[in-house]
Amino acid sequence: MRYRRIPDETVRRMPFYLRGVRILSGKGHSSICSKSLADYLGINDWQIRKDFSYFGDFGKPGVGYDSAKLEKRISKILNLVCDHNVVLVGAGNLGSAILTFNGFGQYGFNIIAAFDNDVKKIGKKRGAVIIEDVSKIAKLKKRKVNLGIISVPASAAQEAADALVAAGVKGLLNFAPVRINVPKKIKVITIDIAIELARLPYYMASSQSQSAWG
Amino acid sequence: MRYRRIPDETVRRMPFYLRGVRILSGKGHSSICSKSLADYLGINDWQIRKDFSYFGDFGKPGVGYDSAKLEKRISKILNLVCDHNVVLVGAGNLGSAILTFNGFGQYGFNIIAAFDNDVKKIGKKRGAVIIEDVSKIAKLKKRKVNLGIISVPASAAQEAADALVAAGVKGLLNFAPVRINVPKKIKVITIDIAIELARLPYYMASSQSQSAWG
Repeated sequence: MRYRRIPDETVRRMPFYLRGVRILSGKGHSSICSKSLADYLGINDWQIRKDFSYFGDFGKPGVGYDSAKLEKRISKILNLVCDHNVVLVGAGNLGSAILTFNGFGQYGFNIIAAFDNDVKKIGKKRGAVIIEDVSKIAKLKKRKVNLGIISVPASAAQEAADALVAAGVKGLLNFAPVRINVPKKIKVITIDIAIELARLPYYMASSQSQSAWG
Repeated sequence: MRYRRIPDETVRRMPFYLRGVRILSGKGHSSICSKSLADYLGINDWQIRKDFSYFGDFGKPGVGYDSAKLEKRISKILNLVCDHNVVLVGAGNLGSAILTFNGFGQYGFNIIAAFDNDVKKIGKKRGAVIIEDVSKIAKLKKRKVNLGIISVPASAAQEAADALVAAGVKGLLNFAPVRINVPKKIKVITIDIAIELARLPYYMASSQSQSAWG
């Protein structure tokens, strides 16, 4: 099933819904209504119902969603039903933080390899992987790798992206503060920490209240 | 001037516009039209004009914006005209990456202090600061600190947020994968790396094209 013209903002919120459903489900809620999910996430319930509506019928109004079915439905929409192999390029401080972060497993992400061009890092273990030389990225084709994380300096980001795309990666999470050019079919999500910080002062001036979505 | 009911998505894009204007301006463009800014950023020009329209008149249609004026205008909207002092709590791998990142200065952010509870880290230099004991956060009140960055494990995030808010911080950039409860007037932007990664597979399935905004 393909869903078209879904706003990026809706897609952005779906993983939060998934996490919320799992947490509430883990607390014993076998049925979850949009109001309780909204309260838990600190947003409006109409937003949840509107987002869900893009993907078709989720249940009867006024009746809670079956937790297990809802979790499965969102996972399916997000294409998270199967596990995804992930590789990382750039094992500096940020890369090391990502490699030792234990929050990826809950979404079915397995970091199966990490690369760097620093001979002092190559061969060292970080999290579950041993850092390999960047020249080995080309050999990834033999392994089934869907996703790449780029945590190299801005000047090296395009080269890392090119190597990952050539190795068959279909989506990139890029932490380098630079725009990466890739073929149209490849999705790039860039997290620029300075840019994120740069919208905080706006809210301090405008006295808008807290948003759970940031 | 206060702007009300501005969509968070518009605010999210404004720092990208600022960066784009600065880069094009640095390349010698004394005048910038929405089309050239849009092309540079890889988005639609109507999006830029729509976003700008929330903040009043930006110029005549069909005529380019004066680069210097546009930069100043966006900086003012984002409350980035004055510098902001920033402190960080949690000097592990991620915190160290942030402390040594040199991209904050362009937006007027100065990281003036960093805290950790690990005696092995306290007293060590990271970037421009020396790591202090978390108990010293309370003493921040004497210094003018607006913004806090939380890069501690999820279990310690609320405590870090409470301490920063008590010390007078008005906005928080939170990397812990957990919801933080703060007074309504405090803005929290949470960057959950696993949640960001969790929306990539959606695009791989739906064959939507690349978005510069992620």
